[in-house]
Amino acid sequence: MAPIAKLNDVVDVVTLKKSIGTNSNIQESGERVRLAARSGTYTKQTSGAAPTYVQANLIVLPSRYADDFRLLCRRNPVPCPLLAESEGIGKWNQLKSWIEGLTGDEMAKNVDLRHDFPKYMVYQDGVLTKSHCLNVEAEWTEDHVAFLIGCSYSFESALVAAGLVPAHMVHGRNVPMYRTSIPLAPAGAFRYSTYVVSMRPYRRKDIDRVRDITRPYVATHGEPIDWGWDAVTRLGIKDICRPEYGETPVTADGSPFAGSLGTGDEEIVPVFWGCGVTPQEAVRRAGLKGTVIGHAPGYMLVLDARDWNIILKS
Amino acid sequence: MAPIAKLNDVVDVVTLKKSIGTNSNIQESGERVRLAARSGTYTKQTSGAAPTYVQANLIVLPSRYADDFRLLCRRNPVPCPLLAESEGIGKWNQLKSWIEGLTGDEMAKNVDLRHDFPKYMVYQDGVLTKSHCLNVEAEWTEDHVAFLIGCSYSFESALVAAGLVPAHMVHGRNVPMYRTSIPLAPAGAFRYSTYVVSMRPYRRKDIDRVRDITRPYVATHGEPIDWGWDAVTRLGIKDICRPEYGETPVTADGSPFAGSLGTGDEEIVPVFWGCGVTPQEAVRRAGLKGTVIGHAPGYMLVLDARDWNIILKS
Repeated sequence: MAPIAKLNDVVDVVTLKKSIGTNSNIQESGERVRLAARSGTYTKQTSGAAPTYVQANLIVLPSRYADDFRLLCRRNPVPCPLLAESEGIGKWNQLKSWIEGLTGDEMAKNVDLRHDFPKYMVYQDGVLTKSHCLNVEAEWTEDHVAFLIGCSYSFESALVAAGLVPAHMVHGRNVPMYRTSIPLAPAGAFRYSTYVVSMRPYRRKDIDRVRDITRPYVATHGEPIDWGWDAVTRLGIKDICRPEYGETPVTADGSPFAGSLGTGDEEIVPVFWGCGVTPQEAVRRAGLKGTVIGHAPGYMLVLDARDWNIILKS
Repeated sequence: MAPIAKLNDVVDVVTLKKSIGTNSNIQESGERVRLAARSGTYTKQTSGAAPTYVQANLIVLPSRYADDFRLLCRRNPVPCPLLAESEGIGKWNQLKSWIEGLTGDEMAKNVDLRHDFPKYMVYQDGVLTKSHCLNVEAEWTEDHVAFLIGCSYSFESALVAAGLVPAHMVHGRNVPMYRTSIPLAPAGAFRYSTYVVSMRPYRRKDIDRVRDITRPYVATHGEPIDWGWDAVTRLGIKDICRPEYGETPVTADGSPFAGSLGTGDEEIVPVFWGCGVTPQEAVRRAGLKGTVIGHAPGYMLVLDARDWNIILKS
């Protein structure tokens, strides 16, 4: 097989930066969104907020589970890309970065992990006890450790900049996400978990470009893990029309995406990526004791780091 | 589920270091084995050579495949743990380390990657053209990049030190290795590869200790990926009695290990780890053009780094 182009050749940072200019939210920064969420004035979903600022998923655990969770991410970096964590046990105002060449302060300096997500979910001994609350100041203890996990918004911006707009974005829908039978490598308390994947339909002839564009985003799931209709079987997905999370899939023209469309290179096929819901499922399946906190789906933390700060340099 | 003990608690480095004292090869060092291989006087397998010195698998690729292979390892660190690579394209005498806190020179200073493995295999356009040759000076070009991959000898030493001697070692056999249906996350030219796993039988009651002891060896496959008889089905292993690599499995008393033995906590069950044959299979399946070089199975590079230099600090 022919080698793939060098990573530097395929990520056009200039194009990525220019694409901001077309967006009306140009004035927004990660810090502004965080401060607005902290004061309770920003309570929306963060999709499209402060374009090109990296967004992150949240998982907060009692410290006794922190080593195992960090190892789970390390062993399964495609579905569980760890961006940063609390700088120490109980720390909600300082980050330790897991991205090479980026400090915790560069990731997000003025940060309050208890307030800066627009909405949170709280679990006690595995049972949801608070849904979509505005902060977790009452729940956060000196024993908690927060983990920030990469999200696909970063590579979706790159796909948009390349003219390969994901179909769900065209129609303002949530991306469809599926449970699979592909096991995670276990880590301590975290066992018997499987990949959750997100799906975006593309024409066969575009798949090489889609792979090339998303490949450098190793901190936010990277290139697809599989594609094509036979991938549905390989991944153990039960029904492409009934995703376990998100909304049902549509094509670019808005029609339901339920089976083969077009032929040859023009055929539209499903393309699957590792998904940040994976670590949340892993945490739920581990049956942890105590208070566990997550963000409400779609209500992310917006960082100071930019999309081009976290892509892989070759 | 209860949390797992902190990593520091379970790896007893003192015991590990003391266990060297019982070995007659105490005088051997990694460098001595390399120099002997370089001069052509050491031509044996390296199992048991220079105990506690880390050993490594080899994959040498034309430089155009290097980015994709490095990414394959990064996305699949459990079966493909990358220890080090050539310090630059064409470099055979200097390493770049991928282990945090360890420089390339600390990994192996006086090194000649063309001579220091006791035996090599050479492939041209995917076809084996030389088997078990003593050096690859004629094949190495200024365009080659060498990758060193972790091997399970490191965690096997730790299991031995804890009195949990793998059954195949008791009987001087090679570990059984199996092809599975668990996919690797693809990376550029490397697609449609699956995990290869090694198997060691253990009693159910010992599995938690076996997991704890091997967990910190993240640079050499870490803790098991699955265990128990139902894992055989989950992993898509065709026949436990017919491994694709290595020798057929035996129990500690030397009898064939073909099915359930004992009951309850005393039942002996198969325990599976990620295996360094995985990247070799991935390279073969990718159908690469040009000259690819590997070590002959069992004939590893012995490094200057020690087992306790590469374990994860919590």
